[in-house]
Amino acid sequence: MSFTIIPIGIIHTPFNNLEGMPIQPSGAVDVTGTIVMDKEYEPGLKDIEGFSHLILLYQFHQSKGYDLLVKPFLDDEKRGLFATRAPRRPNPIGLSIVRLVERKGNVLTIKDIDVLSGTPLLDIKPYVTAFDVKEVAALGWLEKKQDKAKILKSDSRFIESSKPL
Amino acid sequence: MSFTIIPIGIIHTPFNNLEGMPIQPSGAVDVTGTIVMDKEYEPGLKDIEGFSHLILLYQFHQSKGYDLLVKPFLDDEKRGLFATRAPRRPNPIGLSIVRLVERKGNVLTIKDIDVLSGTPLLDIKPYVTAFDVKEVAALGWLEKKQDKAKILKSDSRFIESSKPL
Repeated sequence: MSFTIIPIGIIHTPFNNLEGMPIQPSGAVDVTGTIVMDKEYEPGLKDIEGFSHLILLYQFHQSKGYDLLVKPFLDDEKRGLFATRAPRRPNPIGLSIVRLVERKGNVLTIKDIDVLSGTPLLDIKPYVTAFDVKEVAALGWLEKKQDKAKILKSDSRFIESSKPL
Repeated sequence: MSFTIIPIGIIHTPFNNLEGMPIQPSGAVDVTGTIVMDKEYEPGLKDIEGFSHLILLYQFHQSKGYDLLVKPFLDDEKRGLFATRAPRRPNPIGLSIVRLVERKGNVLTIKDIDVLSGTPLLDIKPYVTAFDVKEVAALGWLEKKQDKAKILKSDSRFIESSKPL
């Protein structure tokens, strides 16, 4: 049942190491990055410039292993891994929603990007209001903590254990 | 740079074949499904019951190969693959946002699910307003078509070419 994932491009950002990196795109507003898609996939980018927001799936390429209970950056209690966005996961796939600024051939300029420079890109999907915008009724342990994510930067805990949140 | 993906559970739904299946969760409102997580990952579900919505990543396990230009279900023109949510992709990873109804041990009851029964689950992440809700400014070729997704069901085109939209 397992299958092999192959990067289709690379995400370039101003973040060359984990310290000081914003912990989610909402903490990375206006940070500009670029996606350099492998040339062979360029035809698949047709029409993408019409969308204001894109969903990026990428590899947490600096993550190794995982724990099923993690202490998130925003919290002092151990939480179940699947109730967090920590990067050390059984399948280390990350998800960020970014703004698309422009496309030139196989290169996309994006904003609000929060990943390490050199991150392998796995997929791009258009962000679609009817499918992706939900009225959240409950935010669990994050209820009173999500605003913090906008101002916090990652620190050494990030490196030791898991991507905050 | 490639890596191996391993399913962590199975998604069960009323949809045993592609015909008649809603084409996105917004067309699957109130459809109930269950996620049976492999027992070994159950501790990672702690705290998840606090969240009203979850992001599911799963394998499009019935998809083989891909085309970089596809004619989406909602359209008559060929579009770039990455400007669509078609299932036949270089990395066949699907994304759906569902409502969490309840958790019993390693079993989650969910609503608004739109995948084939037996779909391999790859990851669960909490859906977080501050990170995942965006004000969309442009929807590209979908601008006047996304409402259709709520009423359309998949047909044979789905099977022949790609998951609609």
